[in-house]
Amino acid sequence: MERRRILLIVFDGLADRPVTELGHKTPLEAALKPTLDWFATNGANGLLDPIAPGIRPGSDTSHLALFGYDPLEVYTGRGPFEAAGVGIPVERGDVAFRCNFVTVDDDLTVVDRRAGRIREGTAELEKALDGIKLGRVKAFFRAGTEHRGALVLRGKGLSPKVSDTDPHEHGVKVEDAKPLEPKAKATAKAVNAFTKEAYKRLKDHPVNRERVARGEMPANLVVCRGAGIFPDIEPVPQRYKLKAAGIAGVALIRGMFRAVGMDVLDVEGATGGLDTDMVAKAEAALQALRTYDLVIVNVKAPDLCGHDGKASEKIKIVERIDQMMAHVKAKLPPDVILALTADHATPCALMDHSGDPVPLTIFGEGVLVDAVSHYDERSVAAGLLGRIRGRDLMPILLSLSNRAEKFGA
Amino acid sequence: MERRRILLIVFDGLADRPVTELGHKTPLEAALKPTLDWFATNGANGLLDPIAPGIRPGSDTSHLALFGYDPLEVYTGRGPFEAAGVGIPVERGDVAFRCNFVTVDDDLTVVDRRAGRIREGTAELEKALDGIKLGRVKAFFRAGTEHRGALVLRGKGLSPKVSDTDPHEHGVKVEDAKPLEPKAKATAKAVNAFTKEAYKRLKDHPVNRERVARGEMPANLVVCRGAGIFPDIEPVPQRYKLKAAGIAGVALIRGMFRAVGMDVLDVEGATGGLDTDMVAKAEAALQALRTYDLVIVNVKAPDLCGHDGKASEKIKIVERIDQMMAHVKAKLPPDVILALTADHATPCALMDHSGDPVPLTIFGEGVLVDAVSHYDERSVAAGLLGRIRGRDLMPILLSLSNRAEKFGA
Repeated sequence: MERRRILLIVFDGLADRPVTELGHKTPLEAALKPTLDWFATNGANGLLDPIAPGIRPGSDTSHLALFGYDPLEVYTGRGPFEAAGVGIPVERGDVAFRCNFVTVDDDLTVVDRRAGRIREGTAELEKALDGIKLGRVKAFFRAGTEHRGALVLRGKGLSPKVSDTDPHEHGVKVEDAKPLEPKAKATAKAVNAFTKEAYKRLKDHPVNRERVARGEMPANLVVCRGAGIFPDIEPVPQRYKLKAAGIAGVALIRGMFRAVGMDVLDVEGATGGLDTDMVAKAEAALQALRTYDLVIVNVKAPDLCGHDGKASEKIKIVERIDQMMAHVKAKLPPDVILALTADHATPCALMDHSGDPVPLTIFGEGVLVDAVSHYDERSVAAGLLGRIRGRDLMPILLSLSNRAEKFGA
Repeated sequence: MERRRILLIVFDGLADRPVTELGHKTPLEAALKPTLDWFATNGANGLLDPIAPGIRPGSDTSHLALFGYDPLEVYTGRGPFEAAGVGIPVERGDVAFRCNFVTVDDDLTVVDRRAGRIREGTAELEKALDGIKLGRVKAFFRAGTEHRGALVLRGKGLSPKVSDTDPHEHGVKVEDAKPLEPKAKATAKAVNAFTKEAYKRLKDHPVNRERVARGEMPANLVVCRGAGIFPDIEPVPQRYKLKAAGIAGVALIRGMFRAVGMDVLDVEGATGGLDTDMVAKAEAALQALRTYDLVIVNVKAPDLCGHDGKASEKIKIVERIDQMMAHVKAKLPPDVILALTADHATPCALMDHSGDPVPLTIFGEGVLVDAVSHYDERSVAAGLLGRIRGRDLMPILLSLSNRAEKFGA
């Protein structure tokens, strides 16, 4: 039984709802996409509910499901994945937060929630904040893009059940973190100690002195939200006994890969934006398959069009995805099981994620080919895969790649 | 993101099995139903297993599932919903029973299980029984239709694990309630105290004296069955953050609505019988959508035909349902997501509920239309919704009406 390799390509937010201006077609249906249709024609097709029918997924929960985990079991909040995304090596039991650099006045009232859209100097501010000791708790901090960052608290008995310090609006004071369960008291205390210490270290920091001198708002505090505890999950490589790598431009998805023990590969030109070099991503994935058994690629662009409500842009992105897939088709080794799906729908009419199912095509040797000939939300429903859940995908791919362990004897 | 309203119409026991005399068609397939077919043609279709494939649902468990709850988690017995149906305000932790007025002799041997099919005077008998104190337990009693009623016990630490006092046959003595688990002792004791006290209060009650004088059997005792504890469930309005109302003629379904915190609307002519005014129900539902976000309608008639084993009657009921749906079609506001399904199959050949899946059509703006053109058990299987479970329906409707909360970020 020859083991195959697995290439899973996740088109972020690809699925959509019928658009009146497109004659009630979805952008995916309206686009010219001969290569995607070729894969559907020569593969097995179906609909996939990322979490469960009707459940609106976040990108984090849906990726956990696509990796084969039960998000209801392992997901407590976005913080840990965001932290992993900006490069903090997260450990089980760590409590992590998403952070913003903000501008506050002497009273800790928020003047600007993005610290004047700071772009430079955050690496130095990071150094001032990383490694702070808060009693028995140690704080790790990393700056992300622009005003974003992540905070990780490490120590015994921490709880993610604490409220945000981010007041989520301007003109009000930074909040005290409050324990939302009795055993979260120590965690809330540590968060509040971090707020105090961060202000002390940032307010007169050279970077901020210079900003003020230039007439810019200082990044003189960090506020926290979305606390989550890093779950006790078995990493992908051990769980499936394979070497696994991920390719993504967006920090959150890179963090998801890292959090489940996958290597994150850098690809020049893979930005996670509309300008991303998709062919470069495809080429990197094909290269990675030489040394990895499982490669997962996230293509963020369709999600951005959905959030912007731009159906015509989404059609163009699908057509660029099709070119990317032409590159994959030309170079795909014969022993690779390829899966094409989305992490959720981002309907242009909704400008946000919806709970609609997404199309799934599986292509490769040993796959029973069905009569479906188009890769879209409607056509794939007639396919052999029926309607499955996100969590089911990885076991199916492991089985088709002859890597699944037998349950029973 | 515009929020839509939801109209869910449950055709009780609608689904069926092939009937030889109908050329192996089901009654639904044999009926003339252009409007139901119109909705199927212009909607998304699929099969729904109310609980899970092959599981034979009661109307209570299936409605819980259609409301979005897991009946395996929240259902302990029919009593609580029957009690809510006859108007007892049930509280969490209450143990409730379905009851019958019966005729017993001096020895408490059951002479007639329906107290001579008593129809009048039960409201007065109810008064004699309601509010009895049984030690630390308080008993609430309501008469239902004819010989039926419900008993609710309220107190600390009650258990639903007690046996019936209803012997379920004539000519034998009323049973003692027995505890089926150690902590049910106090509950069994309270039930037995109720039996004793009820007989004392009923045997010489004026209503019964008059019945005996007229040569009718006295309703001189109440027997109990189907103990259930009222579950700790989050009511529908809080759970889904909407205003919800239900329309049904049958007491049990009205009780189901009340038990999950929905308003129950009265409709003149909506009897829950074969003579029910279905168009009046449809009109009431359309009116209710002016003030409610979610309206659920139960149409009982097809179930009655199934229990009676009358396929030709069931065809006629389907054709009346089609007229009802013509009224809905003519007046449905454009921002309503409409779902048409059944709570279970009641095949005429079985004269009882079966575990077969039921047809589901979802119609409305944003719904991806499939190629199905008939609303019946066979045709819908080719539809876009695939095969889902009862519990999945509410999340799907919430997502399509843009009311679902995101899981993750």
